[in-house]
Amino acid sequence: MILKKLFLHNFRNFDNEKFIFEKRNIIYGKNAQGKTSILEAIFLLSLGRSFRTSKLTELIKHKKKFFFIEAEIIKDLVTQKISIYFDRNNKKKIKHNHTSIYSFSHLFGIMPTILHSPYDINIISGYPTKRRRFLNIHLAQKDPLYVYHLTRFYRALKQRNTLLQKKLLTNIEIWEDEIAKSASYITYARNKLLLLLKNPIQNSIDSLSEKTEKIDLKYLPGLSFQEDTKKTYLSYLQQLEKNRKKDLYMGTTQFGPHRDDFTIYISKKPAKNYASEGQKYSISTAIRLAEYKILNYNAIINIDDIGVHLDEKRIYNLKQILESFSQIFITTSIKNEIFEKENIIKIQEGKIVY
Amino acid sequence: MILKKLFLHNFRNFDNEKFIFEKRNIIYGKNAQGKTSILEAIFLLSLGRSFRTSKLTELIKHKKKFFFIEAEIIKDLVTQKISIYFDRNNKKKIKHNHTSIYSFSHLFGIMPTILHSPYDINIISGYPTKRRRFLNIHLAQKDPLYVYHLTRFYRALKQRNTLLQKKLLTNIEIWEDEIAKSASYITYARNKLLLLLKNPIQNSIDSLSEKTEKIDLKYLPGLSFQEDTKKTYLSYLQQLEKNRKKDLYMGTTQFGPHRDDFTIYISKKPAKNYASEGQKYSISTAIRLAEYKILNYNAIINIDDIGVHLDEKRIYNLKQILESFSQIFITTSIKNEIFEKENIIKIQEGKIVY
Repeated sequence: MILKKLFLHNFRNFDNEKFIFEKRNIIYGKNAQGKTSILEAIFLLSLGRSFRTSKLTELIKHKKKFFFIEAEIIKDLVTQKISIYFDRNNKKKIKHNHTSIYSFSHLFGIMPTILHSPYDINIISGYPTKRRRFLNIHLAQKDPLYVYHLTRFYRALKQRNTLLQKKLLTNIEIWEDEIAKSASYITYARNKLLLLLKNPIQNSIDSLSEKTEKIDLKYLPGLSFQEDTKKTYLSYLQQLEKNRKKDLYMGTTQFGPHRDDFTIYISKKPAKNYASEGQKYSISTAIRLAEYKILNYNAIINIDDIGVHLDEKRIYNLKQILESFSQIFITTSIKNEIFEKENIIKIQEGKIVY
Repeated sequence: MILKKLFLHNFRNFDNEKFIFEKRNIIYGKNAQGKTSILEAIFLLSLGRSFRTSKLTELIKHKKKFFFIEAEIIKDLVTQKISIYFDRNNKKKIKHNHTSIYSFSHLFGIMPTILHSPYDINIISGYPTKRRRFLNIHLAQKDPLYVYHLTRFYRALKQRNTLLQKKLLTNIEIWEDEIAKSASYITYARNKLLLLLKNPIQNSIDSLSEKTEKIDLKYLPGLSFQEDTKKTYLSYLQQLEKNRKKDLYMGTTQFGPHRDDFTIYISKKPAKNYASEGQKYSISTAIRLAEYKILNYNAIINIDDIGVHLDEKRIYNLKQILESFSQIFITTSIKNEIFEKENIIKIQEGKIVY
């Protein structure tokens, strides 16, 4: 799949701008000119949400009433269009070719996109929430059963916590049974994903660091689990019962997939504590590229502010890796010889300049 | 004050390394060679803690039993020494010249240091906790009364929350009175600091962005406050009483300095939502430089991974600003013509290379 054209109207600091893209696109410009806003528009058309804000009205240009954005993509040799209109009253009109779409969630899959930003370093350095969100977003994209169990798990967990707070333990077993069933699937899926990610991550890291660094990923469940989800379910059930007294005192369910975490190791030490910023950035890049390989779809790769924290050698190696992807968009505020031969789109104050 | 010499033994990936510094020092090297560890040693000698980990044993070189670091500074024309020994049993020996120091906290003030790292962007984009921590750390350095009130406030808050959870409201007024008294001072001091910071921040931003961006800072207290701390105290007291029912239901004190926040505006819009990464990085740099000016001491400025997110023009402007500071240490993994004339210390695998 290729994103061929993009039109932005009243979007962020863009008035009316038409972009024609190629396979490799370098969006270059000084700070605060609108580079990331282009990636934001692509992301919005792909996933129905922004990666910078939860309030879409913030995307409407200052003093304007609405924004309109449109993408033209070529997929399986057929040209398709996706457009979004959004105004200050939160009214939206989404279209795929000539069909109206009534919810952003239905955009999903039409123009798959992977975004890699400097904030991805939080998968390594941030709180466990960041890592759980990474696992959930990835698994939600490829496994509807995961979505089902995650929803069911959180609903049952809420019920159990309410009973704990009210000190009403009658019927708590019903919810514990649901929790244990869904938790065992969630744990199984997450652990499997981490095992799957390991090799492609190592491959990217080998290319970036020239085989000097060894990566490992380990899931850290608060409750024990086995390969067999049925055994895991029974063991969860037991442990929930055993923990009831403690949980009653705390007024909340202390262990389970809602608290789980995973550790990334670099040369056998936790990357969170031992990796340098350059190594952390390299690992986060490798994670995004591995996602692409595992999802196995024809996604667009967007890299915001490329090479932050990377030395010249690693930026050069990263460019070599990117050669194999079908379409890439890269933003940068630093002129770099490495990218001189690509399609360079220079942005200044929300306009393309030549 | 000038940091003249630094000796690192078994520290991170350094074996035995002696550094001789000048006024401007560029620490240059590829990723993961030990650049940041030099700044970490300076920070540790200055503030008795690391900015990368809370476990000092992580700083001991792999397979070694202890680390030893020593700084030689010239202050008021006199040469002084500070050293730290730390081993795997958490045993420490700290020395200032020939005097033993028994606690890390007593190091404070001997070799004042300000660190600016890419993580400072969290002051703008992160959770309110990050901004409160910034205010608290800054104020604690210059105002012992602030430390007194902050400690007293948290102690009283804990007492009130315990009473709320136990649903025991007798005597709660005693703690509310303490809370109101200390909260009014905390709010007053924080608000005053933000007013003080505004001009120096604007000055740096003017130099970085060439006068295109206007900055504002606004304190956002959950409870109303006046210029007069006595009036604020009385108003807090009233509001705590008024909130008691709601707080009883939630089991916690919902409003007060422990939940307060401040907003940074850029050209009248919240920087958190509207600033580009380059603008956010510029603001965080400006905040650190403003801190230096307000604290008005002869601090060392450490800038880790300089210019992340900045375009070439802004990096150049930043260098001009840094000219006026007494001593600076900058790490970078990218060769940059702008810094070619400075004292460049090239690091490779924990060693100085020439």
